[in-house]
Amino acid sequence: MSLYTQLFYSKEVNAFFSDSESIRQLLRVEATLAQSQANKDLFSKEIADVISTCCTGSEIDIEQLKNDIPLGGNAAIPLVKQLTKIVAAKDAEAAKYVHLGATSQDVVDTALVLQIKEFIGWANAKIDFLERQLIALTQQHQETIMIGRTLLQHAKPTTFGYKTAGWLEAVSRSKQRLQAVQKRLLVVQLGGAVGNGNIAISTEIQHEFAQLLGLKPSFTWHSHRDNLAELASVLSILGGSLGKIAKDVSLLMQTEVAEVFEGAAEGKGGSSTMPHKRNPVSCAAILANTNRLPHLAATLFSAMPQEHERSVGLWHSEWEVLVEIMQLTAGSIEKSIGLIEGLEVDKNKMLTNLELTNGLIYAENLSLALAKKIGKSAAHELIEKACKNAIQEKKHLKEVILEMNIEIDDLDELFNPKNSIGLSLELVRQVLKQYEIVRFK
Amino acid sequence: MSLYTQLFYSKEVNAFFSDSESIRQLLRVEATLAQSQANKDLFSKEIADVISTCCTGSEIDIEQLKNDIPLGGNAAIPLVKQLTKIVAAKDAEAAKYVHLGATSQDVVDTALVLQIKEFIGWANAKIDFLERQLIALTQQHQETIMIGRTLLQHAKPTTFGYKTAGWLEAVSRSKQRLQAVQKRLLVVQLGGAVGNGNIAISTEIQHEFAQLLGLKPSFTWHSHRDNLAELASVLSILGGSLGKIAKDVSLLMQTEVAEVFEGAAEGKGGSSTMPHKRNPVSCAAILANTNRLPHLAATLFSAMPQEHERSVGLWHSEWEVLVEIMQLTAGSIEKSIGLIEGLEVDKNKMLTNLELTNGLIYAENLSLALAKKIGKSAAHELIEKACKNAIQEKKHLKEVILEMNIEIDDLDELFNPKNSIGLSLELVRQVLKQYEIVRFK
Amino acid sequence: MSLYTQLFYSKEVNAFFSDSESIRQLLRVEATLAQSQANKDLFSKEIADVISTCCTGSEIDIEQLKNDIPLGGNAAIPLVKQLTKIVAAKDAEAAKYVHLGATSQDVVDTALVLQIKEFIGWANAKIDFLERQLIALTQQHQETIMIGRTLLQHAKPTTFGYKTAGWLEAVSRSKQRLQAVQKRLLVVQLGGAVGNGNIAISTEIQHEFAQLLGLKPSFTWHSHRDNLAELASVLSILGGSLGKIAKDVSLLMQTEVAEVFEGAAEGKGGSSTMPHKRNPVSCAAILANTNRLPHLAATLFSAMPQEHERSVGLWHSEWEVLVEIMQLTAGSIEKSIGLIEGLEVDKNKMLTNLELTNGLIYAENLSLALAKKIGKSAAHELIEKACKNAIQEKKHLKEVILEMNIEIDDLDELFNPKNSIGLSLELVRQVLKQYEIVRFK
Amino acid sequence: MSLYTQLFYSKEVNAFFSDSESIRQLLRVEATLAQSQANKDLFSKEIADVISTCCTGSEIDIEQLKNDIPLGGNAAIPLVKQLTKIVAAKDAEAAKYVHLGATSQDVVDTALVLQIKEFIGWANAKIDFLERQLIALTQQHQETIMIGRTLLQHAKPTTFGYKTAGWLEAVSRSKQRLQAVQKRLLVVQLGGAVGNGNIAISTEIQHEFAQLLGLKPSFTWHSHRDNLAELASVLSILGGSLGKIAKDVSLLMQTEVAEVFEGAAEGKGGSSTMPHKRNPVSCAAILANTNRLPHLAATLFSAMPQEHERSVGLWHSEWEVLVEIMQLTAGSIEKSIGLIEGLEVDKNKMLTNLELTNGLIYAENLSLALAKKIGKSAAHELIEKACKNAIQEKKHLKEVILEMNIEIDDLDELFNPKNSIGLSLELVRQVLKQYEIVRFK
Repeated sequence: MSLYTQLFYSKEVNAFFSDSESIRQLLRVEATLAQSQANKDLFSKEIADVISTCCTGSEIDIEQLKNDIPLGGNAAIPLVKQLTKIVAAKDAEAAKYVHLGATSQDVVDTALVLQIKEFIGWANAKIDFLERQLIALTQQHQETIMIGRTLLQHAKPTTFGYKTAGWLEAVSRSKQRLQAVQKRLLVVQLGGAVGNGNIAISTEIQHEFAQLLGLKPSFTWHSHRDNLAELASVLSILGGSLGKIAKDVSLLMQTEVAEVFEGAAEGKGGSSTMPHKRNPVSCAAILANTNRLPHLAATLFSAMPQEHERSVGLWHSEWEVLVEIMQLTAGSIEKSIGLIEGLEVDKNKMLTNLELTNGLIYAENLSLALAKKIGKSAAHELIEKACKNAIQEKKHLKEVILEMNIEIDDLDELFNPKNSIGLSLELVRQVLKQYEIVRFK
Repeated sequence: MSLYTQLFYSKEVNAFFSDSESIRQLLRVEATLAQSQANKDLFSKEIADVISTCCTGSEIDIEQLKNDIPLGGNAAIPLVKQLTKIVAAKDAEAAKYVHLGATSQDVVDTALVLQIKEFIGWANAKIDFLERQLIALTQQHQETIMIGRTLLQHAKPTTFGYKTAGWLEAVSRSKQRLQAVQKRLLVVQLGGAVGNGNIAISTEIQHEFAQLLGLKPSFTWHSHRDNLAELASVLSILGGSLGKIAKDVSLLMQTEVAEVFEGAAEGKGGSSTMPHKRNPVSCAAILANTNRLPHLAATLFSAMPQEHERSVGLWHSEWEVLVEIMQLTAGSIEKSIGLIEGLEVDKNKMLTNLELTNGLIYAENLSLALAKKIGKSAAHELIEKACKNAIQEKKHLKEVILEMNIEIDDLDELFNPKNSIGLSLELVRQVLKQYEIVRFK
Repeated sequence: MSLYTQLFYSKEVNAFFSDSESIRQLLRVEATLAQSQANKDLFSKEIADVISTCCTGSEIDIEQLKNDIPLGGNAAIPLVKQLTKIVAAKDAEAAKYVHLGATSQDVVDTALVLQIKEFIGWANAKIDFLERQLIALTQQHQETIMIGRTLLQHAKPTTFGYKTAGWLEAVSRSKQRLQAVQKRLLVVQLGGAVGNGNIAISTEIQHEFAQLLGLKPSFTWHSHRDNLAELASVLSILGGSLGKIAKDVSLLMQTEVAEVFEGAAEGKGGSSTMPHKRNPVSCAAILANTNRLPHLAATLFSAMPQEHERSVGLWHSEWEVLVEIMQLTAGSIEKSIGLIEGLEVDKNKMLTNLELTNGLIYAENLSLALAKKIGKSAAHELIEKACKNAIQEKKHLKEVILEMNIEIDDLDELFNPKNSIGLSLELVRQVLKQYEIVRFK
Repeated sequence: MSLYTQLFYSKEVNAFFSDSESIRQLLRVEATLAQSQANKDLFSKEIADVISTCCTGSEIDIEQLKNDIPLGGNAAIPLVKQLTKIVAAKDAEAAKYVHLGATSQDVVDTALVLQIKEFIGWANAKIDFLERQLIALTQQHQETIMIGRTLLQHAKPTTFGYKTAGWLEAVSRSKQRLQAVQKRLLVVQLGGAVGNGNIAISTEIQHEFAQLLGLKPSFTWHSHRDNLAELASVLSILGGSLGKIAKDVSLLMQTEVAEVFEGAAEGKGGSSTMPHKRNPVSCAAILANTNRLPHLAATLFSAMPQEHERSVGLWHSEWEVLVEIMQLTAGSIEKSIGLIEGLEVDKNKMLTNLELTNGLIYAENLSLALAKKIGKSAAHELIEKACKNAIQEKKHLKEVILEMNIEIDDLDELFNPKNSIGLSLELVRQVLKQYEIVRFK
């Protein structure tokens, strides 16, 4: 439903895949094919220019095209038919050279790669921006102490900067993956009927065609779709890492936790029935996409065992799904940028929450300190008993330790959160340094 | 991409889920809520009528709505805002009663159920039609002998009617499932903020609301989405059975097999490079959907563990996916009807293909006949040897049997395909009889 | 890894699918086939009895069987080979009648249905027990007031009984689905090589075979797998509903929320490093299964477009996956029973948490009360403003309302949680009544 | 079901993930942790050696371990408990230092990475071997002419070497991906309770620990699982490419096509009922895995949005699934090696099949040749008409062309398959050359 185009998607990226833009890219491929063939002396430059002139898309009847697609089974067949008529109306001779030697999948696949290239360019820039945001957020919160939570239970203290450094590292690995996939993926498809070329599609023409489009030549991949599946998986993995951030924020934003919040905006996150609510609506949108992307990526995997030189159906199943994957990922990236941009952090609430367990979160501190004296296992058991007492008697752990006459040195310092954040400061500094080197030096 | 709306989808069903229709159903829910509340004396009938009058959708600014959806996180919040303004412009008092006591999910879910109901009505009629087509096809080909194939190898003879009876039975079971899911699924959602009702949403109002909409009342299912997941699975299973038919047809249509064909149409199934081709384009579209539906259905399953009284994201992930599932299923149903409608069967090619193995497909016949004399195992081994000889020497099995002096009674009859179709005739008659009883008596 | 058999699975159900049990069921099918054929006079009862005697499985060489499976491609082929030898050693004549007329898929599929039947019997009893537990839990907590949460934010009060009634209703619908699937699913497979029967597999023999096994006869479904996909989806949906319960419990068990807990047990839920922790380990196991089941169910859907009379690979892909689905579901059912059994509810903490928003959760109450005077929209805006003030000034909403001179009748009562649980009591009573009728009268 | 371990899996790789091997790797991690801490002077080398000595696994009670896992929720907790007892029995002091500072996920994750490393080593070698096989197959069949098929229809001629070069290229890209994933993936996990280290887990110890295990150090990835998801996707993509090969072979092996065959083996591919059958059982196994892998990979994607510092359930859902993915992929690799090893190619049948369309496959040749004279569009239409005539009149296309007086130069040569294989020879030579450079020079 297009009602939700601004909730789950990015307007900018949606535009890369509009009907008119898809047609424009298909025609760009046809024009470039003609130019390549003329450049390699298959026919005159004049003929190629006539064809190119007709490839603006302005004369294409889109409704007719949609009606005809079910007959041909893909967009290229009826489009080439319309294009040939348009060219013929200008120059009957030139019409003979439209789409020469190519097969419809050549055009559909290459146009798709051109759209992917545009998307990846957009995505790289946005992920780069998000990475910078996360670097800044991490720098800012290096010393912001909060509780670390495992299995949704208070575990022991960490810093918010340590948490966001984890987010940063994950996003950064996705950036690497997106760069790696380009090498294999940004190639043309130009093989003719069964992929093995013909007199109108020589290797010289293939190379010229690739160069003119800013892509690389490639062995025919009509029924070898691993690169597309790789793109799908790389984006789904990014969507998963962004979903992890949104999951953390939505949990931290719970009424009972209230440590971190999506930025407020006029009219944002309100409820139709509860005037006081501040819903994590951006998190909801990102998490919705995170739930959908794995299944969409898997569709591309399932589409891989394609029959012979062109598949009956598996190829066709890729078209809308891969576009949906790119569009949803773009939506998640944009929402994530907005989320980090507006993120509000309540350091005081973080400190208050550290006290919720009456000191139990320092139990490991005590355990490790005590272990030096009496061994890990005995220490664990003794502290476990103290914890049980503290819970049963609803007392602070420190109080219980004293009552039980457990001797631990520097007891007060062991209950100071600053002394309980492990290597957070050092480890975050290391991470940030590595980005500094890459970025600022 | 909307370029493919006529390739993978049904125009009729797409219309049920257009933006304007979605808004119409949401407003219908709002109008009915007001009417129910007025009928149960929460406020005057006049007020309800003012609200209803404003619920036509004609005054809704759809672009504004799309812009506002990311703020509220769903369609109902900004829609109610617009609706309240529209009502207020007519009657300030009435505006106080718009959406009274309801939560946005009540409206979104109930409107979705109304759309599902329309879809199921459409689907039931179409599946019924498809079932009749398959009955007719089966009747027509009860005695059409062809080879049965297992693991894509010739196995032994069957009839085309036996094959299509299997298709029919599978479609028929899907019809049963679709009927069963309605009982649970066609219910309203009306619970207010956390689902447990309030003074404006009494059980009397819930029942009235349900009755006016032609649905049943229900315990709140804001975060219990099993019925939607069931619908998704029922449709995905139907899509799988239709995909099995398309798979069979596409295989039978192979150049080497050439027994069954999609109907030809002007310009249909042609290739842009090979003038002679007759591509199974309807099969391709159906099989494309069959590859997508399992993953879309699984998205609904993955969306099930929704948090507390309303989820952050999992609910939101359902919206577009469930609609996509209904739309793709509709496309597959329509394409399947067209496929069966135009199906061409070459009985002679079927008979010719029976001879491809030089009699090897009758080996089991011989084996069973021989088993009576010398036991199953010995017979199997002897016939296996004869088969190997036939293959090596490229002779007809009958010839080899004679050369090997294997004594089998009525040898000629054992090589007659009519005597090798097992219980095909009887079993198909039984199936058809059962539909006759249901349908014609 | 079998290390986790007791974490994610049920020992009882695992036993239904052990190697030896699988072989036992396959041989039971072979024995029953022979008995059916003898009962219908295909051969003597004595021969059938010899075969049956050899079908205990005690003489089967399982390692040899595993070695031979890759040659035949399924378990039946080498098993029949071993069985035939075993029978032949006793009675050479009887050996001729082993597996007569059947195909390996007949045996594999029917044995699978027998295992499914055992599983469903187990599952029905366990789900019934879980239903009773949830009825009791709901009865017990009809009046236990707690906050309702939407998008992980406090919304307005509800009761714990209302929440658990939702759990109960969802589990109950899954019970219905499991009962419905049995009608279609618990049928034999007996069609011979290409499914259409033969002299050794008459319809009389099919019916006898079905009756002896306690199943129903059926048209051949060698390559129509909708019923198996339906079972997979029904179980995945149940797994989703159990996951929703576990999700709720794990969230309620959060250190900051602390309203509901998994039962404690000696050594359960402890951490290797934090002696105080009480991890929701049963929830973790259930939620792990909930994450896996959708994808496993989708595998069955993807396996549906099977080629002709028997598929190359899609059939084979079902075997382990369907068993895994049943085993994981069984694990989730058992863990859920344990979870509900030991569930601890802290009513006081629930009441304390109601106060966390300084009265904001009563805003809708106020809004509805005020709406009667000044209209819904104006009331919403005024209360929204009061809420903002309350948040900014960190005051209780009641205090702000008084300061802002907003006149609302019975203000104190509007802030009493008992007056804010909507129809919770009535709606839960209705639900319970309905189960009483079914169960106790 | 372990009955199928040799059908879908690799015995060698199964061994990497046996219970005892999993325990061995977990204990290896514990031993290495102690050694690292001793090397960095946290305690004496003697203590570390006592611990190491106890980490052989020989004294571990596996049944007890399985019983205890549901209490702790993972394998490390009860294992550390057993290990500590074993160490304590030898040296009470040393027992204090077992698992010091680490969290159970550190051990589970690092042990998993060690198993992954073993698997990747195995996989690299096997894929390398498969690549060499495919190079040899391609070299051998550079000039083996066959029909190219699109949408399962004869399209135009190609070579079998061109087809296998496509297989080779796809496998080779998967090899690249597997190499790329190692850089990110082969890292230790060592962060302690919430990942941020502690006095017993300094950065020096982390580095020492990584070095001793032959892995790299890493920022904590307890709840950032992108690298595991990447491995899952890389393997699923490889599984898809192997499935594509198996799909092609199974289609080429059809009775009607009969061009390429799985190697025969004593007892392989037989049917229990049809003595003559030669089933593509290796293809079936590979294709079964290909149907399962996408859904298993998607499970890892769905597991990504893990809560805070450790997830409730999503982490747990990875364990068995990732192992299953590696095991199934290993099975597919082994089966593919066997498939290519034994592949039989019937060049004569390939030539015979080229004639099936009565010359229609040369239509594009004619069309292109004619286009030079009368333009592409007119040529296409004229040849299309000739093709229709040929089909209707069941004549050879050449005959029809002559009858229709269509003038085309060198008509005979246009119907010679050798002149219709496009650039197959050249393109395959280019591909082979590229591998030669890499491999042989």
